[in-house]
Amino acid sequence: MTVFEKNLHQKIISELHNFAALGDAAKLKALLKQSPSLINAAADNGWTALMYGARNGHFEVVQILLEEGCDTSIVNKSRQTALDIAKFWGYKHIVNLLAGVNGGQRPTFLSGEVKECENYFGLTLLDRKSIKRTDSKWLSEKQTHPTTVYLLFSNLTPLVTSSGGIEGSEQQEVKLCRLCYKDVEQYINQTEEGTLIFLGVELTFHMNVVGACSERALQDEKDELVAWFALSIDSASAEKFKQNHKDCYFLHPPMPGLLWLPDKEAGVVAQARSVLAWHSRYQFCPTCGSATRIEEGGYKKVCLKEDCPSLQGVHNTSYPRVDPVVIMQVIHPDGNHCLLGRQKRFPPGMFTCLAGFIEPGETIEDAVRREVEEEAGVKVGHVQYVSCQPWPMPSSLMIGCLAVASSTEIKVDKNEIEDARWFTREEVMEVLMKGNRRSFFVPPSQAIAHQLIKHWIGMNANL
Amino acid sequence: MTVFEKNLHQKIISELHNFAALGDAAKLKALLKQSPSLINAAADNGWTALMYGARNGHFEVVQILLEEGCDTSIVNKSRQTALDIAKFWGYKHIVNLLAGVNGGQRPTFLSGEVKECENYFGLTLLDRKSIKRTDSKWLSEKQTHPTTVYLLFSNLTPLVTSSGGIEGSEQQEVKLCRLCYKDVEQYINQTEEGTLIFLGVELTFHMNVVGACSERALQDEKDELVAWFALSIDSASAEKFKQNHKDCYFLHPPMPGLLWLPDKEAGVVAQARSVLAWHSRYQFCPTCGSATRIEEGGYKKVCLKEDCPSLQGVHNTSYPRVDPVVIMQVIHPDGNHCLLGRQKRFPPGMFTCLAGFIEPGETIEDAVRREVEEEAGVKVGHVQYVSCQPWPMPSSLMIGCLAVASSTEIKVDKNEIEDARWFTREEVMEVLMKGNRRSFFVPPSQAIAHQLIKHWIGMNANL
Repeated sequence: MTVFEKNLHQKIISELHNFAALGDAAKLKALLKQSPSLINAAADNGWTALMYGARNGHFEVVQILLEEGCDTSIVNKSRQTALDIAKFWGYKHIVNLLAGVNGGQRPTFLSGEVKECENYFGLTLLDRKSIKRTDSKWLSEKQTHPTTVYLLFSNLTPLVTSSGGIEGSEQQEVKLCRLCYKDVEQYINQTEEGTLIFLGVELTFHMNVVGACSERALQDEKDELVAWFALSIDSASAEKFKQNHKDCYFLHPPMPGLLWLPDKEAGVVAQARSVLAWHSRYQFCPTCGSATRIEEGGYKKVCLKEDCPSLQGVHNTSYPRVDPVVIMQVIHPDGNHCLLGRQKRFPPGMFTCLAGFIEPGETIEDAVRREVEEEAGVKVGHVQYVSCQPWPMPSSLMIGCLAVASSTEIKVDKNEIEDARWFTREEVMEVLMKGNRRSFFVPPSQAIAHQLIKHWIGMNANL
Repeated sequence: MTVFEKNLHQKIISELHNFAALGDAAKLKALLKQSPSLINAAADNGWTALMYGARNGHFEVVQILLEEGCDTSIVNKSRQTALDIAKFWGYKHIVNLLAGVNGGQRPTFLSGEVKECENYFGLTLLDRKSIKRTDSKWLSEKQTHPTTVYLLFSNLTPLVTSSGGIEGSEQQEVKLCRLCYKDVEQYINQTEEGTLIFLGVELTFHMNVVGACSERALQDEKDELVAWFALSIDSASAEKFKQNHKDCYFLHPPMPGLLWLPDKEAGVVAQARSVLAWHSRYQFCPTCGSATRIEEGGYKKVCLKEDCPSLQGVHNTSYPRVDPVVIMQVIHPDGNHCLLGRQKRFPPGMFTCLAGFIEPGETIEDAVRREVEEEAGVKVGHVQYVSCQPWPMPSSLMIGCLAVASSTEIKVDKNEIEDARWFTREEVMEVLMKGNRRSFFVPPSQAIAHQLIKHWIGMNANL
């Protein structure tokens, strides 16, 4: 820009800011139509038109600027956003307008505080030590090391032993069989049949201490890290193995058996099962249809065809798949009802949170809104992330949210779900706390749906 | 249970609660060792051992119960959690203990309030109307309808026209070419060459109105919905097309060109590019290596081999892939520095947030911790979700978080990144607000990294 152009540019910005500060909506609109790119332009003090409008309580100005897509997150040199300014000067209607953009205002019954919640399948006792996946010398040394732990899988279910029923409950409890090299040696070498995955090393307390001085020692060649592997074997080998180990069995069918593991073993199984499921369904190169070779401790598949485009550059075709899913506790605008639905395949009486896969090019929040509207015909405004849960059936990541409905009429899409209803807080509490199954019930505590429902129930703890 | 067993059970629970209430840590521990399953058992009033410990300020009792894995989220019949109770009775050390579980306490400089933020690629002008994907009659009618909009892609980049440079900026601005059936007719029928994706219908204002009465009218056969499709053509067809449309061009290379679109077109391109990229890299059935057929408006691929296991049940092999990625603004324990890193392939001087793919069986929060430790050797405690962004290179979902470091020494893994450093708030503000590029710079505002950094800067807006 020439000096003349620069001065003109500054002058127009200053004019725009004046219109905003004075509340002259018509002139502001006209100027923006002529120079739309100036909408977010800031003065030397960092103030934008939106800030000047907010500072002086001009509702219409703020409205026009929002409609034209101005950036509400800009801060001035005092680190204030337009919302901060409106709050400070007490313009409640402007505050509401500014706080309400982007997916609706958070209602007062929703606290912003969300504590990290540890869901089943989300805890583990391993550090993945992914750096070792490419260290084939280290991996092969660990494979035969006497302290190394092997988990055996057949048909995507782990080998377990029963540790009896849980006191005062119908639920069983099972434990992973932690095998050693000797136990599995003969199956490992049948590379045709088995898939071997490096899962990581046991987390040890000193590794969690900030700046632990023993860290360096761990990097020595003869480390004391206890490595874990998952080995998948075919059905015939599995039968043979069971004959020699009468107290062990493969946890089949996977559900609900996979929910009976100790918490930290559940996370290890989530990891192993997801990777093994990927191997079982992704045996061929999707780009050219050729056979593939396993690399990097089981976390990479390389196409065997020399000129396959998948070998040029890095492509997701070579790496395990994780499918992000949204699952949401939908709250009625009154804050005291929630929307739960059921699919035909559910046991009679079970209702749970709505859920669905995130689509390509979609945000978490929009996926929540789309799924709730598609399945139940209910519109959603504010969405708030709560916690997530890996779900290895086969490899989902359940992203748990609270979603505040902005409409209440339910129109069920019978292709997706069988029923959806508003339940009162009291009804849900009855079911959740007393296990009263007379009217309906919700999934067990290992499911993130249960935790989301509980989170909603616990949210309004008033003393 | 017999009546006798039931009474015994009740008696043990009551004993456990007494030990907790009295602060007798030794006896509590002994009893828990004997009956670990009672840890969360509640009295008739819904109170658990943790609540009794918290009510009476017994630090060691609470500590033992936490170590043994008690559930902190249980609420009693007054809807109080143990944390609520500790707060009410003013036991700060218990409050800190209870608030600090699960990934570290949120430091006071982190506000819990997170406003939904609309990132580039996250806005759209379409409703996906996924229900229509299986309605082949509707789809084929829309394909030839005169109002239908076609976007043309070649080599995964869209056809655009230039709308000149942005005033006062070096950045260009481009717009999608919105074509009609006539323009693309000859390419659609070459099914061998082209891939056609149904993107959705234009969002119209009345569809956002709660309970709009015109909804029913929309379901009539002759709806007025404006459908959008993406059509991918081969290079030869692309050349031919350009010769007849001199003012249009394909946005190649995709970066940074894809960042120059109007906000709402960016989301449409994110959707189209991700799905098209999936088609281009997933042409064969990964389960058996056979050829596939496209269905459901471009959102499904079906294996052509009759007995392929992928045809039994629902498998992710048939659906587009979305790769969840964590990207995090790592904050120094003092709250006034952030950790930014750079890769060798970045332009000189550019630093940005660390990021990495979420692995199978991993939570968002653990992926943040693992990636930061792997890449920079820094340990992370509290993690807080901020916002997300679809990133169609080729089909990632960037999940943006704030992460609070619990260690400060940096140890860069040179295989992953080239450099990582702590930057002061002032240094970052200088770069972000003044665009001062002397020392370093950060990605443009279209990248979620920019928004996360800005979010951190704006977080402490004190008036």
